[in-house]
Amino acid sequence: MEIALIKNLSCHVGEQVTIQGWIYNQRSSGKIAFLIIRDGSGLMQGVVVKQEAGEVLFSDAKKLTQESAVKVTGLVREEPRSIGGYEMQITALEIISIAEDYPITHKEHGVDFLAEHRHLWIRTPRQAAVLRIRSEIEHALRSFFYERDFVLADAPIITPAACEGTTNLFELDYHGEKGYLSQSGQLYNEANAMALGRIYCFGPTFRAEKSKTRRHLLEFWMIEAEMAYFALNDTMKLQEEMISYVIERVLEKCTNDLKALERDVEKLRAIKLPFPRISYTEAVEILKQAGEEFTWGDDFGAPHETIISSHFNAPVFVHRYPTAIKAFYMKPDPDNPEVVLGADLLAPEGYGEIIGGGQRIDDLALLEQRIAEHKLPQEAFEWYLDLRRFGTVPHSGFGLGLERTVAWLCGLEHIRETIPFPRMLHKMYP
Amino acid sequence: MEIALIKNLSCHVGEQVTIQGWIYNQRSSGKIAFLIIRDGSGLMQGVVVKQEAGEVLFSDAKKLTQESAVKVTGLVREEPRSIGGYEMQITALEIISIAEDYPITHKEHGVDFLAEHRHLWIRTPRQAAVLRIRSEIEHALRSFFYERDFVLADAPIITPAACEGTTNLFELDYHGEKGYLSQSGQLYNEANAMALGRIYCFGPTFRAEKSKTRRHLLEFWMIEAEMAYFALNDTMKLQEEMISYVIERVLEKCTNDLKALERDVEKLRAIKLPFPRISYTEAVEILKQAGEEFTWGDDFGAPHETIISSHFNAPVFVHRYPTAIKAFYMKPDPDNPEVVLGADLLAPEGYGEIIGGGQRIDDLALLEQRIAEHKLPQEAFEWYLDLRRFGTVPHSGFGLGLERTVAWLCGLEHIRETIPFPRMLHKMYP
Ligand SMILES: [Mg+2]
Ligand SMILES: [Mg+2]
Repeated sequence: MEIALIKNLSCHVGEQVTIQGWIYNQRSSGKIAFLIIRDGSGLMQGVVVKQEAGEVLFSDAKKLTQESAVKVTGLVREEPRSIGGYEMQITALEIISIAEDYPITHKEHGVDFLAEHRHLWIRTPRQAAVLRIRSEIEHALRSFFYERDFVLADAPIITPAACEGTTNLFELDYHGEKGYLSQSGQLYNEANAMALGRIYCFGPTFRAEKSKTRRHLLEFWMIEAEMAYFALNDTMKLQEEMISYVIERVLEKCTNDLKALERDVEKLRAIKLPFPRISYTEAVEILKQAGEEFTWGDDFGAPHETIISSHFNAPVFVHRYPTAIKAFYMKPDPDNPEVVLGADLLAPEGYGEIIGGGQRIDDLALLEQRIAEHKLPQEAFEWYLDLRRFGTVPHSGFGLGLERTVAWLCGLEHIRETIPFPRMLHKMYP
Repeated sequence: MEIALIKNLSCHVGEQVTIQGWIYNQRSSGKIAFLIIRDGSGLMQGVVVKQEAGEVLFSDAKKLTQESAVKVTGLVREEPRSIGGYEMQITALEIISIAEDYPITHKEHGVDFLAEHRHLWIRTPRQAAVLRIRSEIEHALRSFFYERDFVLADAPIITPAACEGTTNLFELDYHGEKGYLSQSGQLYNEANAMALGRIYCFGPTFRAEKSKTRRHLLEFWMIEAEMAYFALNDTMKLQEEMISYVIERVLEKCTNDLKALERDVEKLRAIKLPFPRISYTEAVEILKQAGEEFTWGDDFGAPHETIISSHFNAPVFVHRYPTAIKAFYMKPDPDNPEVVLGADLLAPEGYGEIIGGGQRIDDLALLEQRIAEHKLPQEAFEWYLDLRRFGTVPHSGFGLGLERTVAWLCGLEHIRETIPFPRMLHKMYP
């Protein structure tokens, strides 16, 4: 008998197939039992009719507790009223294991309890849906770059230099030397871009922040691209194409999961290219008109980002931030060196900054000056300076925070649901 | 003018295109200059004929030192004698930057010098070829699982428990608790597989080993798959299909790069399914027949693996290792509990073990017993035991070491060339 996945049941209507999974719910009368079965790809209702299935199968079906493991075989038919739209008339059932007293029942549970049981919580339909969408987003991102001839160049995680202070870095003992967990692959990406042209990396990044917000994780994934011969405008164009590509893919492939999350997909469908682009200075105007007290030169906080992005139905680029509040490597705008050729992308619906990026300084003398101004140890950056000594070219890049993007596309309140095992302040188990 | 990549020149024969890149080599006479240009995607010869191009362009071309950055425009033609098979008749040249005294010249350099200059070394054709092949292998692996409906479920990097002793673990301070960098996502993968059916993770893993061999890195990437309802044989079948898929993709997409590495591709082409499968006991026989002193029950070292694999022209599965030398979670063979339902895959040509995997214990009591026998702290494993308490099913998985696979497919001597910025003992810069 062919083993099928629930997500592919539409290809098996009128066929006998076997599903291997777990019981999510069971209810029965004296004559009929309904099993809601999950197999990791989706949910399916299985029906056992006593008169057709016989005593043994029917009484087995009634024994099944939540999370008991089963193989079921039967005829697949369309059934619009059933979850997922298909149903199985079960004619054979093999019990693999009976689960007793599963801790996560169908009633409400507190957040701390669920977090402590994350290894089981991920089995609930809502959490599983988020994780499948995350997987689709990750693959879409990678496919986007693959199709555009980018080289995937993994940046190192353990790094020797603490680029911008060690406050928010996890430190470790690297056989006698101090090593730090990377917050960004960017500097290495620049080296790789000079070697390979257009590259990206996609890996975990770490921030030992003491903050506890619904937008922050201490361990999160970031996709970072870096392109030789790209100016600021080129990278904004690439970014919006990437976001649009991902949205299209998710809308196409994750229909059932988005539905399970009750995501308003019309808000995603309405997003069209090009995305609006405003300068930092224009963004400050928006804040002032909204009655905020805000001084030109300050950085935006989450509430500011929400006010700015609420003016748009699509993600909005905010470009040309004040030089003083941005990283040392950002290229000043030749028309106004008080601002840099950088841009952040703010997601709609209050999800805040999902991308930061821009053009990098490609002039050796200016970069040396900036390293001195920022009081960074130049010897740690000699290799990085070499990229300006030998074959320097205009280049740009950006980093997209995966978990915030997942939260936005899924319409989630809290970032902790966007990753299988979130790492938060004082939260490392399981 | 359209910007083209050198790797795609075959699509532009007879057209005028622009290439953005760097000078790898330049030689000229009084009448003609040959520029070997790299753009990260490949190498191309550009030809500047003084009489056609004019004085200015010709003298610009003669100025170009190694690693100077240039945009060149011209007609693309087939030229089998040129590197890559195509050539450009350059009619416009823009100098972006002139590099002075590039440290890595065309003469031989010592390994330490190259390692110190890894940020530049990766620009050399050989290193860039390896990194492009690595990128292709990574994407092929992910595509393989995507096409088979696997969910990508990222395992955490910072973990609380030191599963099997802390000797080889990097430790860090997680806001007052001890955290460790993950050596494997497997335990988390099992939780994810029970939630999502068939999953994989693909991320960096860490081993704080004091060893310094040509096969070991302290930071390396591993793709690990875990499948509910999979027995040992199912996972071996999946593994060989995966390896075969990757080989096919690399042979198809990386022709030029494999050629640049002088890889004997016939050895890869000859690999057919199914791969040979021998038991540990049969492998021990091979060693004895080869004159090795070897006691049943010992683990294989690298020289043993080489002897065993040299008997085959394809990767070989060695299954059913002694229970005593394998991890606590490995399922004993019901026919002979002295051995486990595990299998390693040994690559041919002496590249050693590239995959380890097998079936996991799905029985709660046995797993508790093993945890006690191995003197592991049971409370750290309560969540892992939950996977056997609630909905336990037979399941299997494996982990493939990316860098060893890259070394094998590229035919490299040393693993340090398989990753952009290798992390080795006392080697963390740049
Ligand atoms: Mg910002
Ligand atoms: Mg082994």
